[in-house]
Amino acid sequence: MGHQGVVLDYSGALSFFRREEMVMLAPRVEAIHRQIAAKQGAGNDFLGWVDLPVNADQAEIEAVKAAAARIRENSEVLVVAGIGGSYLGARAALEMLMPYFRTTPPQAGNPEVIFVGHHLSGAYLEQLLNYIKDKEFSINVISKSGTTTETAVAFRFLKQLAEEKYGKKGAAERIYATTDRQRGALRRLAEEEGYTTFVIPDDIGGRYSVLSPVGLLPIAAAGIDIDPILAGAAAAYEVCSHPELEQNPVYQYAVLRHIFYQKGKSIELMVNYEPALHYFAEWWKQLFGESEGKDGKGLFPAAVDFTTDLHSLGQYIQEGRRLFFETILAVEKDRSTLALPEAPGDPDGLNYIAGQRVDEMNRQALRGTLLAHQDGGVPCLVVKIPELSPFYFGYLVYFFEKACAISGYLLGVNPFDQPGVEEYKKNMFALLGKPGFEDQRQQLLARLER
Amino acid sequence: MGHQGVVLDYSGALSFFRREEMVMLAPRVEAIHRQIAAKQGAGNDFLGWVDLPVNADQAEIEAVKAAAARIRENSEVLVVAGIGGSYLGARAALEMLMPYFRTTPPQAGNPEVIFVGHHLSGAYLEQLLNYIKDKEFSINVISKSGTTTETAVAFRFLKQLAEEKYGKKGAAERIYATTDRQRGALRRLAEEEGYTTFVIPDDIGGRYSVLSPVGLLPIAAAGIDIDPILAGAAAAYEVCSHPELEQNPVYQYAVLRHIFYQKGKSIELMVNYEPALHYFAEWWKQLFGESEGKDGKGLFPAAVDFTTDLHSLGQYIQEGRRLFFETILAVEKDRSTLALPEAPGDPDGLNYIAGQRVDEMNRQALRGTLLAHQDGGVPCLVVKIPELSPFYFGYLVYFFEKACAISGYLLGVNPFDQPGVEEYKKNMFALLGKPGFEDQRQQLLARLER
Repeated sequence: MGHQGVVLDYSGALSFFRREEMVMLAPRVEAIHRQIAAKQGAGNDFLGWVDLPVNADQAEIEAVKAAAARIRENSEVLVVAGIGGSYLGARAALEMLMPYFRTTPPQAGNPEVIFVGHHLSGAYLEQLLNYIKDKEFSINVISKSGTTTETAVAFRFLKQLAEEKYGKKGAAERIYATTDRQRGALRRLAEEEGYTTFVIPDDIGGRYSVLSPVGLLPIAAAGIDIDPILAGAAAAYEVCSHPELEQNPVYQYAVLRHIFYQKGKSIELMVNYEPALHYFAEWWKQLFGESEGKDGKGLFPAAVDFTTDLHSLGQYIQEGRRLFFETILAVEKDRSTLALPEAPGDPDGLNYIAGQRVDEMNRQALRGTLLAHQDGGVPCLVVKIPELSPFYFGYLVYFFEKACAISGYLLGVNPFDQPGVEEYKKNMFALLGKPGFEDQRQQLLARLER
Repeated sequence: MGHQGVVLDYSGALSFFRREEMVMLAPRVEAIHRQIAAKQGAGNDFLGWVDLPVNADQAEIEAVKAAAARIRENSEVLVVAGIGGSYLGARAALEMLMPYFRTTPPQAGNPEVIFVGHHLSGAYLEQLLNYIKDKEFSINVISKSGTTTETAVAFRFLKQLAEEKYGKKGAAERIYATTDRQRGALRRLAEEEGYTTFVIPDDIGGRYSVLSPVGLLPIAAAGIDIDPILAGAAAAYEVCSHPELEQNPVYQYAVLRHIFYQKGKSIELMVNYEPALHYFAEWWKQLFGESEGKDGKGLFPAAVDFTTDLHSLGQYIQEGRRLFFETILAVEKDRSTLALPEAPGDPDGLNYIAGQRVDEMNRQALRGTLLAHQDGGVPCLVVKIPELSPFYFGYLVYFFEKACAISGYLLGVNPFDQPGVEEYKKNMFALLGKPGFEDQRQQLLARLER
């Protein structure tokens, strides 16, 4: 490929475990590796993501690119309606790979991508509708069933606005539905109305779906080349063809987090030193939290943005309860050549680093913090990422997806279900007065009255 | 005042503790109350925030308003350089109180406020400089010492750009320094250059400083009326004149979090149902994390945005390890009248709620989730906020500040220091080659080589 791999440097954790602990787990990891390859084990109906990087439907990918090109051509704004796995992956990619500031207003040729349908804020939705109503916009609605409340509510408003603005036929040409291949409310509606559609494969759960059209369409519509994303994922896939722990940083990561869990750690802290990685950590939280947080088990996934949060949670991390280990995303290639100017008279005492790149200072902050936190009793794993690029976005996605599957099986849970997510929905349906929930409604209202 | 108070509803936690546990702590709380009022106890040099709502320097506040008016008049962008307590409070206010979308470009009369100086990302800083260089901008640099690395680095670039664009004198008229009254590098520079200055009082630590010019200038410059913020804080101050637990929701909150900590909870989860509250939780994380995370103690403060994260961390919260209790920020007044349109044929099955406000659905989601999580073994506290407004921003700030002081003393720590924040800085200085850190530098480099 000509690309370096992502490396796991666990030297900052070596004083917190013995190497033999890793060796002890190697045979279990190899067994899990073979089980996944054989499509066996709990949740094996949801292993479609495993071979996706080398098995993608090329015709679908070409269709995604064509749709993205159309959206870019005729839209100043693309509104993406989705929640959870239908939201976080694309947002993580955009935040990682797009500029921090737009120097031009949203425009055809370079549309703005806005996310909606991932909460029930009336103010947000109302202001969004007001923001887009005089702009040219398209909609990508992403829902397996088409009945997920948050997304369906937002889509009703968006569809109405689009039909008012463009007419029924014109709106249908601007609505892209990513949904089930055959079943469900959104599939039915899309076929009736003639929307362009993309498929959420049956064997890929939401949180593992970013490399499917779920993530790829919004990413491509933002102007990001999706081919290197898939190539990066394929490179990580290739790394994961080696079940031997010594050769596989993905599996080493899974094993180390399991070791720290067994030692009593409660929280894994995902750390970045670049604001662009904030939403990658949000995606990662869903991946691990939803895969492992069940049966009373699992590391609680939390994230911090450094150096920002060194002036917020830094005190706790240094000297509070020893609840966590850190996983640090370290980007090796500078993204900017900006270097500190010399200041006459050195008013702030920074002339000792005049001429130094800001990114180099950031790297020294990372290294200094790494040692400080180890000294404070925090095991530190470093995920070394050669650069922030579409290739390494795809690489990291697959890195953590595969690690999560291994880690979930080590923990003894099904990493591919999410039974607990239904509980709030059932209560919400009952309180909203959904037909069929009448008994539960009475019970809940009585409890709330007390 | 004519304003309702913020109420703490702990009915969702009643099955997880006995009322007697609260009663047992009441005398300790009253003693701490008296100790704070008498300006005694650990960290008593930093109690300036306690009387600030009723003791603010009116001349300083008028000067803040005048500066804000000038900034609004002549700037399309205000760049605010600060980190930690010099950053999070103002950002929390702006996110809570400003619209989600700008319908006009940044312009004089309605400037955009952008934060910087809270990390060391070269790409962010470079792109920011590029974004503002052709716009009219002003700068508010906030630093007690003037030598905090992240902020000082950003300010060097901003000052340089302003002087290139406006000349030395013109730049000085657009730079506002919030800093120590007498000492420090920034105070010296400001006096030499003739910047407008505001004071960070000696007896108010960073994380308690949002109601001082640290927070008030950026908030006012964004166009938010600061008088009701201070009035809201004064209302909460008045509530806290009652040391008796029965009458004081602020102290009840402090006591309940202490009880759950004593029962073995590791994490407090701050929950919101409105994206506008995301950064308020970030401010809260610093307040509690930095005040209590020391001596190997303290609840780890984490935050989630619902319903968004019900499709991310919801599974863990429902069924993972029982590590936490929740504190839910519940806004009672709708922010929008947006109501779901009827859809012919009911394609998504939502017609049973057609005509209902989105904000009402959000409220039912909150209520349903509250019960689901209790059933999952999570104690739930609800902070009932009558509406999102400047008044209640100020009220909530004081609510949590006072609660944090009480809670910290209950935990047996000094809630006003942050000794652990220095550790990463020392290492960073050594690795950056700062004069005076030569020995430490050699030691650190040797450790990193290993």
